[in-house]
Amino acid sequence: MGDFRIAKLVIIGVGLIGGSFALALRRAGAVGHVIGVGRSRPNLETALERRMIDEISFHVEDAVRGADLILLAMPVGQTAGMLAQLDRCVDAATVVTDAGSTKRDVVAAARTMFTRNLQRFVPAHPVAGAERTGAGAATGLLYQGRHVILTPLAETDPAALGLVARAWEKCGAKVSSMSPEEHDHALGMVSHFPHLLAFAYMDTLMADPSASRMLGYAGTGFRDFTRIAASSPEMWRDICLANREQLLAGLEAYGSTLNELRAALESGDGTALERLFVLANRVRRDWGARFEPSGDSAGE
Amino acid sequence: MGDFRIAKLVIIGVGLIGGSFALALRRAGAVGHVIGVGRSRPNLETALERRMIDEISFHVEDAVRGADLILLAMPVGQTAGMLAQLDRCVDAATVVTDAGSTKRDVVAAARTMFTRNLQRFVPAHPVAGAERTGAGAATGLLYQGRHVILTPLAETDPAALGLVARAWEKCGAKVSSMSPEEHDHALGMVSHFPHLLAFAYMDTLMADPSASRMLGYAGTGFRDFTRIAASSPEMWRDICLANREQLLAGLEAYGSTLNELRAALESGDGTALERLFVLANRVRRDWGARFEPSGDSAGE
Repeated sequence: MGDFRIAKLVIIGVGLIGGSFALALRRAGAVGHVIGVGRSRPNLETALERRMIDEISFHVEDAVRGADLILLAMPVGQTAGMLAQLDRCVDAATVVTDAGSTKRDVVAAARTMFTRNLQRFVPAHPVAGAERTGAGAATGLLYQGRHVILTPLAETDPAALGLVARAWEKCGAKVSSMSPEEHDHALGMVSHFPHLLAFAYMDTLMADPSASRMLGYAGTGFRDFTRIAASSPEMWRDICLANREQLLAGLEAYGSTLNELRAALESGDGTALERLFVLANRVRRDWGARFEPSGDSAGE
Repeated sequence: MGDFRIAKLVIIGVGLIGGSFALALRRAGAVGHVIGVGRSRPNLETALERRMIDEISFHVEDAVRGADLILLAMPVGQTAGMLAQLDRCVDAATVVTDAGSTKRDVVAAARTMFTRNLQRFVPAHPVAGAERTGAGAATGLLYQGRHVILTPLAETDPAALGLVARAWEKCGAKVSSMSPEEHDHALGMVSHFPHLLAFAYMDTLMADPSASRMLGYAGTGFRDFTRIAASSPEMWRDICLANREQLLAGLEAYGSTLNELRAALESGDGTALERLFVLANRVRRDWGARFEPSGDSAGE
């Protein structure tokens, strides 16, 4: 266990996710030289000042030479293009991983765009994040106690998988593996779908002519229920499109539950309402007792 | 302003809401003798030990004699029966108020059951609360900065209205007035409806065969979105039945928004998705900047 160390790390996209990964590894003494690649000079300079990176680069091909690990942490819409570019230039010893919130699409992109180096690509999803973005929001504690899910391919080199798993463990994360399908199903239901519902609720509210007056009376229940509606529209557009099959299935199932509730309300059936509320209440309380994460962030 | 004081206060139902009202008035030096009426002796003894009440009573008619103010804070399903009982025994100088989360039903009950003393009934809703219940959860700070909405009748005596308004102001609350219809519409949309949606989401999740496994990967977004699903099933059954017209209208409007999202997902229309997410994001951020309440409670 003792001397795990990544001599050269390249972070492509030094925002909350990439920057926090670098800071956490630095904190654990598990990284040597870190190059940050990006398009925004001010953001990269913030990263340099905060010592999460040692060097700024705007040239991917130069930056990745001799890298032990490359983390793709730029907007997910750019992943396929970046994999294509990297496939032409990465060294034969370099491991590449990502941090995207959906995994079937990333795996499909790698199978098409990263064919030469496919065995050294490790798809990963750190289940953490917040409404905040950019290197300024990064923190070395972001991943403490959070899940990181790896979705290796049949072809994935066990050594590459081990490297990525140990790096995330060094960040304080709980690392597990599952198939990309299982990942997208589970995260679709416990993360992506609530985001969709929270956005939809805010939109519905705003369609009411007295919305702005009503908002003045909203309390802590509203605050918490809608917090994820303050998440990045661009990021969630991409996640929802990437996982749309699961979200459509979720909408179908949710529609059935809402129809049950509608019928109970229409007929004044308190017993049916209470039965549905009791189940929800019990599950949420059990979850809180077993799993409830602390911390003030929202969205993943 | 100086010497506002309720010489004799009767709290019927000394739980979180009633107990916190007594504690807050005590803290403000605005109350003399407080009698707690209830059915659970252990709960009333907790209230007595915590000095939120001075005296325990199991007999409403004895307790309310000579009271300046009576607060109805027991489960709302008992309001109509209690009003009928009180109408036969309250003194001609006693003001009665309630703390129910819906107001049209309370006003209708008062018009039927509290006819002799109707002008001294002041319907009220303190928009505060939490998942916790009982006298043990009460705190004198619960109402600091929170809204209390009064929905007076045309017949309501201005002096009675003023007494209740000043009492809540002494608790640190922001007091406003509106019609029962406006109240139920606004609170239906910003409070009751999110509760219904959060319960429905948990029920939908549990209908998935892999629910228990998925719950292990839920993060802070899930935590906040579902917090209100841990609220009391009995209380929310009653609120939802009392405000079912508004909730049915909400379900109708929400169904339209979900259909828009479904269509955008089906056709892969990222522009339509992003437009809906941008609106939701902007409204939530504006709300957060203007109104976001602090404090850790959830549900109202």
